[in-house]
Amino acid sequence: MTAAALQTALDYHRAWSSHDLDAAMALVAPDVVCDAPAGPVVGRDAFRAFMGPFAAMTTRTEVLGAFGDDESAVVLYDTETTLVPHAPGAERVEVADGRITRMTIVFDRLPFAQARAAG
Amino acid sequence: MTAAALQTALDYHRAWSSHDLDAAMALVAPDVVCDAPAGPVVGRDAFRAFMGPFAAMTTRTEVLGAFGDDESAVVLYDTETTLVPHAPGAERVEVADGRITRMTIVFDRLPFAQARAAG
Repeated sequence: MTAAALQTALDYHRAWSSHDLDAAMALVAPDVVCDAPAGPVVGRDAFRAFMGPFAAMTTRTEVLGAFGDDESAVVLYDTETTLVPHAPGAERVEVADGRITRMTIVFDRLPFAQARAAG
Repeated sequence: MTAAALQTALDYHRAWSSHDLDAAMALVAPDVVCDAPAGPVVGRDAFRAFMGPFAAMTTRTEVLGAFGDDESAVVLYDTETTLVPHAPGAERVEVADGRITRMTIVFDRLPFAQARAAG
């Protein structure tokens, strides 16, 4: 059996990457605190506004590594997006009662900034 | 007992972040293939040239999440650097015979590019 936090992390990943943002946010606590590249994102509404645009531009994803226990998990993945063809990311999540309460998300904003600047 | 690949990943992290690049590179296979933000880095010499400058500017690190088994591991960490005060990163490694043979490394190049442009 997959450990609880890992299962939640993988379910969350599958949901957002298949553009089911409602299902993804059902796995996120209302008072989630996310340490994102541009700074803290606090609360599920703000988190949805943060993740929604990225999820919308994601055309493919592949989980490269995923491990965890019942309290926390780490997932490292690659994505293809309409803006940047190769955009890996990584997340560490803490999970309580089946919902993500804290997240640290790491990805490289540079190619996105460059693509936006280019047009 | 910590699983073998996770132990190697943690030992590698501790070595480079304490500026012992020789010890870090002893845990890296000569023919390592690293998927880095700017593109592939192939071979330990190239990998050392890639990691050395980042290790040199790292003043503090904290492992936020680390999991793995005997073949692979994922480590997500925060760093403080002389250029960027809050620079989290994540690595997935594959390990054989106590050495890292493949790595995917994720970090945000944008604040480093901005700091260099500003300074």
